[in-house]
Amino acid sequence: MLPKQVPGVADLSNPTNARVRTVSQDAPLVNYGALEGSVGFLLRCAQLAVFSELVDAFAPLDLRPAQFSALALIDANPNLAQSHLCAALNVQRANFVAMLDELESRGLTTRRASTQDRRVNTLALTLEGRRVLRRAVTLHTAHERRLLKRLGSSGRNQFALLLAKLVASN
Amino acid sequence: MLPKQVPGVADLSNPTNARVRTVSQDAPLVNYGALEGSVGFLLRCAQLAVFSELVDAFAPLDLRPAQFSALALIDANPNLAQSHLCAALNVQRANFVAMLDELESRGLTTRRASTQDRRVNTLALTLEGRRVLRRAVTLHTAHERRLLKRLGSSGRNQFALLLAKLVASN
Repeated sequence: MLPKQVPGVADLSNPTNARVRTVSQDAPLVNYGALEGSVGFLLRCAQLAVFSELVDAFAPLDLRPAQFSALALIDANPNLAQSHLCAALNVQRANFVAMLDELESRGLTTRRASTQDRRVNTLALTLEGRRVLRRAVTLHTAHERRLLKRLGSSGRNQFALLLAKLVASN
Repeated sequence: MLPKQVPGVADLSNPTNARVRTVSQDAPLVNYGALEGSVGFLLRCAQLAVFSELVDAFAPLDLRPAQFSALALIDANPNLAQSHLCAALNVQRANFVAMLDELESRGLTTRRASTQDRRVNTLALTLEGRRVLRRAVTLHTAHERRLLKRLGSSGRNQFALLLAKLVASN
C-alpha cells in the first residue's frame, strides 16, 4: 500500500510552506514539524513506498526484497564469500545471518567452506533457489518497468544523476 | 560510512552496460546481476548511504533517524495517538512499539490514555525529550544543508518532482 501523498514533496520546492497532509487514508492530518521538506525523510518515504509495491509483487513467492537481492548476487557471483555479500548488500551482519539461515532452511541456498580458506563460507543457489530467482526476476522486471514509466525517458537519467550527486561525499 | 560507489548509477542511463563495481573498500568486485541498473535497488542504496551519514551525525545524541522522526512528529502534533504516529511514519507496529518503549525508558517521551477515549494512547515529549530534539534538529538541519548543496539549486526541485512521480500509483 502506498502512502496517499509523500510528505514534503511540495515543501522541498518551497521550504516556507508548512502545510499539513495525510500519509494514509486512516491517518489524521499530521504536521511533519522538523521533518517538513526534509530530503532525507522524503527519500525514505519514497523508498518505503517503492519497496512496499515490490513486497506486494513478490507475495506469490513469499520473498522479501532483501532476500531477492541476496539470491540475485549469489547467482551472479559464483562462490561469493558470505562476508562479501553482506558488504555488497550493505546490510547489518546480524540481520544478514538470520536471512541466510532462512534462505537455507527453505532450500534456496547452500553454504560451504571455501576450498581456498576453510574459515570462509561461500554461497551458492540450489536448483530450487535458481527456479525461485527466475520467477522473481520476471516480477522484478515488471516492477522496474512501472517505475521507469513513471519517471519518463528523460526523468530516468536525471534521477540516476541526482541520486549519484546525493551520495557523493564532500 | 558511504559506499564508495552506488551500484547501477551509470547503468540506469545505459542499461546494457554490465560493469562490475565495488561498494566498499573491503569488498571485492561484485557483479550485481539482476539488480544491475535497478531503480529500486539504486534508491535503496542511496537511502542507506544518506541515512548512514545521519546516523553518524546523531551519534553524540545516541539517537537513530527513526527515533528522531518520532520525536519530531510527537513534538509537532500535541496528543498524537500512538497508532496515528505509527501510520504517519509508515513503520511496522512491532518495531514501532519497541522504539517507543526505548524512548520512554530513556525519559524522552510519555504515553497516557486519551481523555476522549481511554483505549487510545497519546504521546508527548518530556522536558528532556524536547532538549534532545532541539539538539537533533540542529544536527539534522546541517545534514540537510549538505544534501541540498550536493543536489544544487535546480537539482533540489527536480529531485522532489521525480520522487513524487516515482511513488504515483498508476
